[in-house]
Amino acid sequence: MQHTRIQLAQDDIPKQYYNIQADLPEALPPVIHPGTGQPIGPDDLAPLFPMELIGQEVSQERFIDIPDEVRDVYSMWRPTPLIRAVRLEKALDTPAKIYYKYEGTSPAGSHKPNTAVPQAYYNKVAGIKKLTTETGAGQWGSALSFACQLMGIDLEVYMVKASYNQKPYRRSMIQTWGGQVFPSPSDRTQAGRNVLSISPDSPGSLGIAISEAVELAATREDTKYALGSVLNHVLMHQTVIGEEVKRGFEIIGDEPDILVACVGGGSNFGGFTFPFLADKMNGKSDMRVVAVEPTAAPSLTKGQYVYDFGDTAQTTPLMKMYTLGHSFIPAPIHAGGLRYHGMAPLVCHLYDLGFIEAVAVTQTKVFEAAVLFARTEGIVPAPEPSHAIRVAIDEALRCKESGEAKTICFDLCGHGHFDMAAYDAHLSGSLEDYQYPETEVGKALSLLPKVG
Amino acid sequence: MQHTRIQLAQDDIPKQYYNIQADLPEALPPVIHPGTGQPIGPDDLAPLFPMELIGQEVSQERFIDIPDEVRDVYSMWRPTPLIRAVRLEKALDTPAKIYYKYEGTSPAGSHKPNTAVPQAYYNKVAGIKKLTTETGAGQWGSALSFACQLMGIDLEVYMVKASYNQKPYRRSMIQTWGGQVFPSPSDRTQAGRNVLSISPDSPGSLGIAISEAVELAATREDTKYALGSVLNHVLMHQTVIGEEVKRGFEIIGDEPDILVACVGGGSNFGGFTFPFLADKMNGKSDMRVVAVEPTAAPSLTKGQYVYDFGDTAQTTPLMKMYTLGHSFIPAPIHAGGLRYHGMAPLVCHLYDLGFIEAVAVTQTKVFEAAVLFARTEGIVPAPEPSHAIRVAIDEALRCKESGEAKTICFDLCGHGHFDMAAYDAHLSGSLEDYQYPETEVGKALSLLPKVG
Repeated sequence: MQHTRIQLAQDDIPKQYYNIQADLPEALPPVIHPGTGQPIGPDDLAPLFPMELIGQEVSQERFIDIPDEVRDVYSMWRPTPLIRAVRLEKALDTPAKIYYKYEGTSPAGSHKPNTAVPQAYYNKVAGIKKLTTETGAGQWGSALSFACQLMGIDLEVYMVKASYNQKPYRRSMIQTWGGQVFPSPSDRTQAGRNVLSISPDSPGSLGIAISEAVELAATREDTKYALGSVLNHVLMHQTVIGEEVKRGFEIIGDEPDILVACVGGGSNFGGFTFPFLADKMNGKSDMRVVAVEPTAAPSLTKGQYVYDFGDTAQTTPLMKMYTLGHSFIPAPIHAGGLRYHGMAPLVCHLYDLGFIEAVAVTQTKVFEAAVLFARTEGIVPAPEPSHAIRVAIDEALRCKESGEAKTICFDLCGHGHFDMAAYDAHLSGSLEDYQYPETEVGKALSLLPKVG
Repeated sequence: MQHTRIQLAQDDIPKQYYNIQADLPEALPPVIHPGTGQPIGPDDLAPLFPMELIGQEVSQERFIDIPDEVRDVYSMWRPTPLIRAVRLEKALDTPAKIYYKYEGTSPAGSHKPNTAVPQAYYNKVAGIKKLTTETGAGQWGSALSFACQLMGIDLEVYMVKASYNQKPYRRSMIQTWGGQVFPSPSDRTQAGRNVLSISPDSPGSLGIAISEAVELAATREDTKYALGSVLNHVLMHQTVIGEEVKRGFEIIGDEPDILVACVGGGSNFGGFTFPFLADKMNGKSDMRVVAVEPTAAPSLTKGQYVYDFGDTAQTTPLMKMYTLGHSFIPAPIHAGGLRYHGMAPLVCHLYDLGFIEAVAVTQTKVFEAAVLFARTEGIVPAPEPSHAIRVAIDEALRCKESGEAKTICFDLCGHGHFDMAAYDAHLSGSLEDYQYPETEVGKALSLLPKVG
């Protein structure tokens, strides 16, 4: 029998998060207060996050212990499978070895609980009774609802109204796990009421939903806010993925030549690749590390590395990142996720320093790869990791031409059970490709406040 | 750290199916040809099934080897997790130990691939180029599409038209794995055309869809038919579930006092419990084995043990089973699956002999149990296995009253990602209970042909 799954034991669930900030050859550019133009400090963040997470955000410690209670929850689905894609290799007739780490076995069906659980935990131990957050289609909202239920914390999710009405299934999941969901804009916040007074039929946006969630956290004593990507501590929590991948390759005595992961906000990519990047930064490894984004939202490949707001409504501090401008709105024909205008500052810094590559792919090619993967490996992948599958396949086909037997590993960060409408669109031929025009980036960025 | 998952190795994937027919104290009543009134033989089934599966249907061998190629495919997701539900136990404050076997990690999200894969395999080696089948909401159709794709066989699925239009997501999964799906009634068969000529807007039924799938298989040389439950060989393929559960309990040195599984056609229940029943039938074990069905389709608890047709359209042979009558139509308010009018003859035989118990539960109680399970154990269960969760919880609460620390194990045969509309109905309070009236059973059965 072919042993295609590399078996980890429960004791292989990581005991510490890896903090890449300890190994950066140059420190991360500071986050800037838009009013003062000065770096923000812990007090600026204290209304929104518990002090432990603020400490993790700026920590220079290489490893941070994972609390036992968080590891106990991780053990509900971790270690996740590391699988050799022998059927895909055969279909491609490639000498390359292709592996994938599958994060879709979590209760929420994605990698998001890896950070939702510790965020809920650190809030609980800080005495917080309620979290607020925003969600688009509901993947992050459902993961946080799961985590808050286990930690005994209440949750209010502000869900973009158009998704609330059109994509009810993740909304029902949030509710099944006990979270409250409100269509945004709502009449529960000043930010929401302001929008509704001007535009009563507003379909909402992630920017508006962030403003609502942040307003509530900032104005209530027992309530904080949680974010599902972009921030340093979020990416650090996700390093449990990459640490398990390293352990899996140790067991089989191999090592990846190429790592591939999709990027939207950057947490999946960071969590999967950062544990491998220490060796690359100190010159011990020449592994290629590839970030894959959609041509419809190409922040790394078409954006500029400048200070920008994290949200459309300009309520967050300024972060240095590759950005398309915070006014960016994805084209309606873009089916998958990965819709953020910017990118996690840590990912941008590593890209700027040349330790990682980036490539943008079109969605018809992405769904072709997704269907080939489903038909060979069985799992129906979410559209987001299918961007990584596309590039992994392209690299394997290059190996076929060159005759090289490279080892390629990608992160399959979630299943596609809630994305079948996008598959239907692809299979019926109604998906179209879209390249975000580079000329729009300059226009959007010319309006930004200048920093540094 | 709590070790809540019992770890099996890939070598623990069963090497043989367990055939309970070898251990029955009395032989199974024969299947009867409705025309002749005589037991049917292999030749009667040859137009529909390959000879290897017909042989398995009547085999008296205790174990049947699982082909290497089938085990290779199983290894894509097997062994499946056996998990101790420590968080559920704590929420119930019970001295009972609760375990569950989770079959939702298969690509199709249920136990159905356990038989879809060997059925596709045996058809392939018999030179069959195409399979036909029927499907309601699409769970069986999607599992068979996955299996046929891996085995290189074409598949035509006849999907009840109402589900085809209202539940498009499993239809898209069937297509993603390469299967063709047709709304039934279709104009591709005489059976379908007959219905359409009388009733052009017919929403279809499982009975009509079976007739279409069977007609095509019976009239084409290179095409056979596949069924997802009820038949002996289907239940036998599912014994990989129970065999892994036995192995898991060996590893931890414990044994279940009570086994619980839901029943619709009987394949999930049979696969989970049969490997434990040999010891019960020879008096070595007094384990309780409980089948759980909905009060809306109570074939074991309210049906009669008589010969009936397997389908509404009276095209199948007559099988002796607990049945509500083949004209049974589930009430529209019944949200979950488990809608079959009859029950696998093997399950009925064991029930008649007193080796298993049966209990019927209402759907509001089922969904209450499902939500409690999701909020403690994380996994959002499908409505079908939530029937088993309900009874496992009830048994654990009885232990709380009596102070007994019994070991309860149930089969969680699939996740609920495609059933969120039913959760939504439950959470919004619009689900109602329904008891199928016993008086209807007598009326329906009075019309049956008399056998024996």
